[in-house]
Amino acid sequence: MKIYGDLESGNCLKVKYVADYTGIDYDWIPIDITQNESRTESFLAINPLGQVPVVAWDDGRTLAQSNAIIRFLANGTELLPDDPFKQAQIDQWLFWEQYSHEPYVAVCRFHMHYLGKSKATREDWRVKRGEQALDSMENHLSSREWIAGEAFSIADISLLAYTRVADEGGFELNRRPHVQRWINQCEERLKLK
Amino acid sequence: MKIYGDLESGNCLKVKYVADYTGIDYDWIPIDITQNESRTESFLAINPLGQVPVVAWDDGRTLAQSNAIIRFLANGTELLPDDPFKQAQIDQWLFWEQYSHEPYVAVCRFHMHYLGKSKATREDWRVKRGEQALDSMENHLSSREWIAGEAFSIADISLLAYTRVADEGGFELNRRPHVQRWINQCEERLKLK
Repeated sequence: MKIYGDLESGNCLKVKYVADYTGIDYDWIPIDITQNESRTESFLAINPLGQVPVVAWDDGRTLAQSNAIIRFLANGTELLPDDPFKQAQIDQWLFWEQYSHEPYVAVCRFHMHYLGKSKATREDWRVKRGEQALDSMENHLSSREWIAGEAFSIADISLLAYTRVADEGGFELNRRPHVQRWINQCEERLKLK
Repeated sequence: MKIYGDLESGNCLKVKYVADYTGIDYDWIPIDITQNESRTESFLAINPLGQVPVVAWDDGRTLAQSNAIIRFLANGTELLPDDPFKQAQIDQWLFWEQYSHEPYVAVCRFHMHYLGKSKATREDWRVKRGEQALDSMENHLSSREWIAGEAFSIADISLLAYTRVADEGGFELNRRPHVQRWINQCEERLKLK
């Protein structure tokens, strides 16, 4: 399996985390999105929508969208229980991550970390939504060990990717102790520390 | 099963479409989001994140996020094939819908249709992304009958909900013949016309 991705991108790292955790062999093909390497003709042949990450198999199959990829790779592993309702509870958070977290927390980080702009130039409405997303996580994690159900899952990995680097987008993690505790737990599971 | 939703919201209608198509019995509980009915104490007890749609069962289980709900309800039906890779191809489009389509196409419609504002007051960057999303669909559907795989699926229903009313957000459907042909097909399947 080939993973086309950028190691600075949380969406790409989600796929790496799941592959590493579940022991899937892969070749990492670096794509530098700041150099428009996701818009070249050869890349668009793999993903016509021009987005990373994408995975490709030797038989010609390809798959895009970080959360769709990790959900597929996690089939049959402890990261995705077999029970359909438990899967649906995980799906809730995967969709919440892409709709209510990533466009704010990750995009503010892109603004500062990739584009090198200052914290003061972030868009107010985007900052507000990012703070709300992190507050929702803090509230949710105040009474739970993991994001969905009773065990570490792809819902944790999906949300971890950009939450653990939220400070690079100007968000404060140190006033969210439950989120911090959960980040530590996830990083230990993934051997990131 | 109870569906809490707003009949003007495409995200809520996705759930209705899937329940109607697959013959699931439900009570529709209207929630008027313009009257902040999704922020009341009783509603937040069902979904702490204050979003519709939400479904609730008599045994106390609840599920939020439109695409997570329809994916769960479609289990075992023709709208979601059993094959894990075919499911993953559908998931790609469910995530793309929430990340690259809904925030532009649906939010422009919210601006005009719910808030009653004029087409000229839409945000330029949002319009541009909405046009790109519809162009991507036009391109994708130029060589395919359905969004994912060979059959009508929840990927079609998810994208149909806001695409069929994109004109209410100031987007032109009549210059996208493949999208129009696909909307007609979906509406026939769902008996919406």
